[in-house]
Amino acid sequence: MPETELLVCIKCRRGIDTPGESRRPGKVLADAVAGQLPEGVRLVEVECMSNCERGCSVALRGPDRWTFVYGNLTEADAALVVEGAGLYAAQPDGLVPWRERPEHFKRNCIARIPPFTLPEAPE
Amino acid sequence: MPETELLVCIKCRRGIDTPGESRRPGKVLADAVAGQLPEGVRLVEVECMSNCERGCSVALRGPDRWTFVYGNLTEADAALVVEGAGLYAAQPDGLVPWRERPEHFKRNCIARIPPFTLPEAPE
Repeated sequence: MPETELLVCIKCRRGIDTPGESRRPGKVLADAVAGQLPEGVRLVEVECMSNCERGCSVALRGPDRWTFVYGNLTEADAALVVEGAGLYAAQPDGLVPWRERPEHFKRNCIARIPPFTLPEAPE
Repeated sequence: MPETELLVCIKCRRGIDTPGESRRPGKVLADAVAGQLPEGVRLVEVECMSNCERGCSVALRGPDRWTFVYGNLTEADAALVVEGAGLYAAQPDGLVPWRERPEHFKRNCIARIPPFTLPEAPE
């Protein structure tokens, strides 16, 4: 199975006024999923994915796969993020059939981006 | 300069009730930027980037570059999309200094995703 990545924005405040030194909600979510991820999924902590108004944010991606960005997450959603990452990793192109996706993913997809294909002959 | 891509969602209705056979707003935007793109930027038409509530949508991406998704565009924004694509292509990592970005891009960034880096030694 190709390597896939779960990106978690660890700078996200989720609209909460967090004191300067405390862990932000995005980092709490990252810590909550760390160690639980399915085989073949690597956690990558990211500083800002520019989805601040609808954070916390995660993204799933990998070579030759669609990239999906999901939002409106909290640390209470760690289990569904782990589940969604496993379903994503199990599909060669990352396209999980709609009805199999976690309910939160169905309603909170921020964007999706097709696999990268280098042009054969740029004009 | 590495090849970069401008993705345009050509299925976007932008909330407008378009008759079945007419060109959708996303396709109109794609046609408006086609032929105007700076050297090194390739237009890629995409069917749905799942940013339907804040379309029309475009994305800029390339190898070893940040990917940016922008929304709330209309065909009247073709010139700023072309300008933004050129600025993006001119930066090796795609990170255009904030104050140089088109105003619309500043206020309508839907998400950004860091460059893909394959793990050196997956555990």
